[in-house]
Amino acid sequence: MFFNKFVTKVKPYIVSTHKAWEVEDKHNVLKLDWNELTVPPSPLVKEALYDFASNGLMNWYPNVDNLELRALLSEYCGLESSQVEYFGSSDALHEYIIRAFINPGETITMVAPTYDNFRAAAESIGAVIDYFELDANKNFDFNFDLFEKHIETVAPKIIYLCNPNNPTGTLYQVELLEKILRRFNDVLFIFDEAYYEFVGVSAASLVPDFENVVICRTFSKAFGLASFRVGYAISSQHNMDGLRKIRNPKNISSYAQLASIAALKDLKYMQDNVDIVLSSKVFFTAELKKIGIKVVGSEGGNFVLVEFGVRQIEIVTSLEENNIYVRNYGHVHGMDKYTRITLGTQEQMQRVLDVLKVVC
Amino acid sequence: MFFNKFVTKVKPYIVSTHKAWEVEDKHNVLKLDWNELTVPPSPLVKEALYDFASNGLMNWYPNVDNLELRALLSEYCGLESSQVEYFGSSDALHEYIIRAFINPGETITMVAPTYDNFRAAAESIGAVIDYFELDANKNFDFNFDLFEKHIETVAPKIIYLCNPNNPTGTLYQVELLEKILRRFNDVLFIFDEAYYEFVGVSAASLVPDFENVVICRTFSKAFGLASFRVGYAISSQHNMDGLRKIRNPKNISSYAQLASIAALKDLKYMQDNVDIVLSSKVFFTAELKKIGIKVVGSEGGNFVLVEFGVRQIEIVTSLEENNIYVRNYGHVHGMDKYTRITLGTQEQMQRVLDVLKVVC
Repeated sequence: MFFNKFVTKVKPYIVSTHKAWEVEDKHNVLKLDWNELTVPPSPLVKEALYDFASNGLMNWYPNVDNLELRALLSEYCGLESSQVEYFGSSDALHEYIIRAFINPGETITMVAPTYDNFRAAAESIGAVIDYFELDANKNFDFNFDLFEKHIETVAPKIIYLCNPNNPTGTLYQVELLEKILRRFNDVLFIFDEAYYEFVGVSAASLVPDFENVVICRTFSKAFGLASFRVGYAISSQHNMDGLRKIRNPKNISSYAQLASIAALKDLKYMQDNVDIVLSSKVFFTAELKKIGIKVVGSEGGNFVLVEFGVRQIEIVTSLEENNIYVRNYGHVHGMDKYTRITLGTQEQMQRVLDVLKVVC
Repeated sequence: MFFNKFVTKVKPYIVSTHKAWEVEDKHNVLKLDWNELTVPPSPLVKEALYDFASNGLMNWYPNVDNLELRALLSEYCGLESSQVEYFGSSDALHEYIIRAFINPGETITMVAPTYDNFRAAAESIGAVIDYFELDANKNFDFNFDLFEKHIETVAPKIIYLCNPNNPTGTLYQVELLEKILRRFNDVLFIFDEAYYEFVGVSAASLVPDFENVVICRTFSKAFGLASFRVGYAISSQHNMDGLRKIRNPKNISSYAQLASIAALKDLKYMQDNVDIVLSSKVFFTAELKKIGIKVVGSEGGNFVLVEFGVRQIEIVTSLEENNIYVRNYGHVHGMDKYTRITLGTQEQMQRVLDVLKVVC
């Protein structure tokens, strides 16, 4: 009765299976369904938490202007503090971007298939969603000429592009991103760099020269802080000033602030884990090929897409029976033959292979 | 260049002074500026945090469907689980309400002066803000007849009413709320019950009979969990289903979920603190009167409004020099003669009085 004209039509963003949470002994679970880090974050994070649990001011609202976190982020991104801002997750950042930049009825093009949260947030305030589809038959490669034609026709206000793309693994090099930003300088690009640390490729260096880009990043992947909810934006000071006008500075929890500071003080720990994941990817991909399972999307991120073929459901079920949870895309249009598997340590991937060798 | 037509005009929600954060030894600070609990939350919260810091899955995304928290909330509110939903703070809930119910150009009436976050969130997507002002010269009392005339004239889509109201302390009894809901059954009421526990008055019992109300509550006040960011909504299942369509279930941190569960398991601790605050209010108000300081707004919440008169800035500065932080409303239209002081223990309020007795 009271809902606005958009919400009644919105298709919710469906979070994937959460079966792992139903297992009693969670430390025996191998959770490879949400692209989390499969090991705990830096010991400095744990230390910071103990310290806060003992002496912290739990009853106080969070610090609304954490200069230490800003300084560390600025240094990590190699940009001015005014060009970087922390948020209560990159999902929350998506919602602020939508509220700051979209008028009802304007179009957002999403380079798809991709992460769905941005779409749901946008539709709820009346954005029209358009898709530029990466072709599964062409390894989900990005074709600039097709993209250019598509954008010329659709003329969107915003383009959402995830780099590397989840779940296809499509990776965009900086030269290509610069070409895109220059070609469509009247379109605002949202580059979602959730998996940045696993590829080392970022558009951050383009921010001083381009007004038409906002980069979203997270502490939920390589830094292993998914439980805390913290992410950050990188963009021009002008764009950031607008986002700051509607950003709620007291809505980033004290724990999230402490944890991200601790994580940024231990970049070596993060980098070591990235290295482990990347060598795991080589190992796992090679082993899968040996048992005849096709792998795509290995270019980017801490995940691969595998094709289990007609026995997809049966195989995913077998993995679950062994407390291994992966992401079955069986229900997603254009992606239905794929299963996405998050990459952990080599030992963890061996556990997956042990099951696959029995059932495949 | 890229901002939507609303954001450029939005006046940001200004968080009040955060000077307390600049003090080195924060345990020596008496923070009475944001209506937080002045003591730590239940020891069960600390325990839950230690446990998570030792054994918790920090690298996992939060549980997206916390049945234990839902059950405890449902029991606490005396309503069905479908009528209650947790969010990553009541501020975040405000933003979801705005996105779910407001079309650009529609009007929201705010019973003012009041908490400003809802206004800022609403303006950013194009809501028109109207104010029904409580009269400072009439003790900020709510006048139903004036309200009725005002609403008949303005015909808003939504009315925001904080009960008890922050910062005026205005308290609405259930009978009055029911009369309001019945009289304007085509208007959606947002009742912000952030301070519910301090007054024991709630519209929750009206939810089964009225479709036109959404109640916002928080764990940041009586439960002492402001650092965590967690709140909840109470409304009809129909309204809740719409909110759930756009709610991001993975954006309530694991810590916030653990902490609120622990807090709900120790209601006695919360109630004891509420009792301490309420008796502190009697003591503090009486003592202030003895030294000739006028107090208003003592009807609701863990705060009072005091009138320091022409020496307001000088007195607030003296308090700050003694590491006591209060909320000076000197810059707020219609409120400029008031200072809001959060109520702590009697011992803490004595510390305030000791300073006031010297400077007043």
